[in-house]
Amino acid sequence: MNSEIFSPPQRILMGPGPSCVHPRVYRALSAPIVGHLDPAFLAIMDRLQAMLRSVFQTRNRLTLCLSGTGSAGMEAALANVIEPGDTALIGVNGVFGTRLADIVERVGGRLARLERPWGEVFSLEEVKAALDRDPSIKVVALVHAETSTGAHQPLAEIGKLCREREKLLVADAVTSLGGAEFKFDDWLFDVCYSGKQMCLCGQPGLAPITFSDRAVEKLRARKRKPPSWYLDLNLIDSYWTESERAYHHTAPISMNYALHEALALVLEEGLEKRFERHRLNSRALVSGLEALGFRMFAQEGRRLPMLNAVWIPGGIADAAVRQRLLQEYNLEIGGGLAAFAGKIWRIGLMGESSRRENVIFFLSALEGILWDVGAIRSIGAGVEAAASVYSGKSGSGSSAGSGGTVVSR
Amino acid sequence: MNSEIFSPPQRILMGPGPSCVHPRVYRALSAPIVGHLDPAFLAIMDRLQAMLRSVFQTRNRLTLCLSGTGSAGMEAALANVIEPGDTALIGVNGVFGTRLADIVERVGGRLARLERPWGEVFSLEEVKAALDRDPSIKVVALVHAETSTGAHQPLAEIGKLCREREKLLVADAVTSLGGAEFKFDDWLFDVCYSGKQMCLCGQPGLAPITFSDRAVEKLRARKRKPPSWYLDLNLIDSYWTESERAYHHTAPISMNYALHEALALVLEEGLEKRFERHRLNSRALVSGLEALGFRMFAQEGRRLPMLNAVWIPGGIADAAVRQRLLQEYNLEIGGGLAAFAGKIWRIGLMGESSRRENVIFFLSALEGILWDVGAIRSIGAGVEAAASVYSGKSGSGSSAGSGGTVVSR
Repeated sequence: MNSEIFSPPQRILMGPGPSCVHPRVYRALSAPIVGHLDPAFLAIMDRLQAMLRSVFQTRNRLTLCLSGTGSAGMEAALANVIEPGDTALIGVNGVFGTRLADIVERVGGRLARLERPWGEVFSLEEVKAALDRDPSIKVVALVHAETSTGAHQPLAEIGKLCREREKLLVADAVTSLGGAEFKFDDWLFDVCYSGKQMCLCGQPGLAPITFSDRAVEKLRARKRKPPSWYLDLNLIDSYWTESERAYHHTAPISMNYALHEALALVLEEGLEKRFERHRLNSRALVSGLEALGFRMFAQEGRRLPMLNAVWIPGGIADAAVRQRLLQEYNLEIGGGLAAFAGKIWRIGLMGESSRRENVIFFLSALEGILWDVGAIRSIGAGVEAAASVYSGKSGSGSSAGSGGTVVSR
Repeated sequence: MNSEIFSPPQRILMGPGPSCVHPRVYRALSAPIVGHLDPAFLAIMDRLQAMLRSVFQTRNRLTLCLSGTGSAGMEAALANVIEPGDTALIGVNGVFGTRLADIVERVGGRLARLERPWGEVFSLEEVKAALDRDPSIKVVALVHAETSTGAHQPLAEIGKLCREREKLLVADAVTSLGGAEFKFDDWLFDVCYSGKQMCLCGQPGLAPITFSDRAVEKLRARKRKPPSWYLDLNLIDSYWTESERAYHHTAPISMNYALHEALALVLEEGLEKRFERHRLNSRALVSGLEALGFRMFAQEGRRLPMLNAVWIPGGIADAAVRQRLLQEYNLEIGGGLAAFAGKIWRIGLMGESSRRENVIFFLSALEGILWDVGAIRSIGAGVEAAASVYSGKSGSGSSAGSGGTVVSR
């Protein structure tokens, strides 16, 4: 065992994260490490903060990355802004809303739960009504991109509402940041966290987070320390602040190198162009899937471009198809979670994975498997629909109903 | 900024972690990532667990690595075994004991504090007396290798005591694991955590942790969930358990690759040979330093081989020397923390950094700087003393007092 050569397979990652990693990021990852207080590393931290501000579209001073995955970002957000007894309104319409609710209770908060069926989003009116019902609410937390369902929560109006009502708004942008429009300052947010494994970098291990000055005030005024030392932003902030640099924990150097290079790539491409790329590839994928007779899972008009959830048609075996994609094509897509296990697939087109070649390859591979198991009678309809999107000839899967359509759904 | 080539300097890391990274680990780091539920990754997790058991010298089923640095390991240990109101006896004789005490209170425990001056260790009698004084104590936590002082806490007898008294013993082996003897099962421990940036791998970002069956029982019987979702070992365990593989968070794939390769290197070398290498290089370093007139900081006979803390002689400017080592020699050593900032240096010889060439190079570089500022009158005494240790001619710095000795201390 010990002397075996370390050689994992090469996959195309089209699941719910991690996503594919750019070769420049792999090179940065394996650059020689320096110490966590080395001037060379401190300079990297400063540039990381500046680049993160550009990506979050904020001027927040407290903008940094935590030494954990996106879920550590979620926990840090709530553990720092919620004090014992504070009421938090949590939007629960998927796994990540459910997780937010769980964390509220763990950190000693009082939970006010707002629910929607999975795949749907919350309206401004619903949030307003919830705030009216319970004036004790201090914090509102919503998931911008629900990775378990592919639903895309609009947040700009809710930001304005929360600011008027003096509630702190926490937004989960783990899956959306760097792949869809996200304007922290314009949308009047207070806390936002993300993960680097989705649209930013592909490679998991760090959680970018940013706090508005109002959120920082709440943090500074806490009567009790946060329940987590590791994620205590008062302490972490002082390591990231140029004039202090107080040792907190040993930062994962290589992870920060990787994110630094990945953010440089994001900004070289430009946010607008990057969002457009994500939209285009998703449109092509959805066209292809619909041409094959698939139906998308999330609410029409509220679908994420980087996480495309689709109903698995009746008669198609979830595990068998995903296993063939992985084993025969080295291609990973995600299954459904909780009640939707076996019922939906989650097809990620995030960051480096959001590429025309991946869309076309996935559709071809899927068609091949569906044809092989007799679910479609001929091959080509899915790829043709996607190709029409790229060529500008078509925007929707109008070729559905031909011989390429899945037999039963 | 965005298009600049990513090129950090190449340092020799002889501080308190991170330490140097083996080229094979860098190669593993930049291997193409797979998904966190990919069969190829699950196989890596299984091998990681088996290798971690070998290194911890345990058969504990619950043995895995957390997606955070060593400090996340510390927090996870306490957050999972302490329930609100449980009394924990914490040995405080340095920064990391202080941190343990801080975390006890954050997670709702009642703190019983046992103190020793920094640089010293706790005796069996002291721990026994503390347990006698306060029968409500349920958990005892001690730092095996106090990175802030270089003190090496003996733990075997304390393990036996805690087992007799039915206390859970938590040991911090962040700095010692893989560099000094550590026998989880034989020493009757209940929880131990470490960090990969010290003697295991060099590169920070994961925290190996192991729980005895007794500790697992306590975890399973909790009335309240741990305050941390991210570090909840009931949930993480079920992702690492072969028959369950329940998604918890997206594991940092590349970090796990790196640790996998690093543990393979540890086991290829063999634990006993590795410990002997750490002892030998430390002995040579200490001989060299003593020959130059330096005095070691930690209690005689209780000094760590991988973290050598030394008093800075009077008249020597801490920051200036460390800065010259870094800028002129690309060599990092650590300064003192808290009350010992400016008073001690912490010279790490951990994992890949524990090499004869580093000892000799560091002593030469230090002698050059000390000679340049007029603190020693001639060069060579330190290196000669170290060389004598390697050649087997000498075990201690008997050449002290010659022209090579630091003038003032």
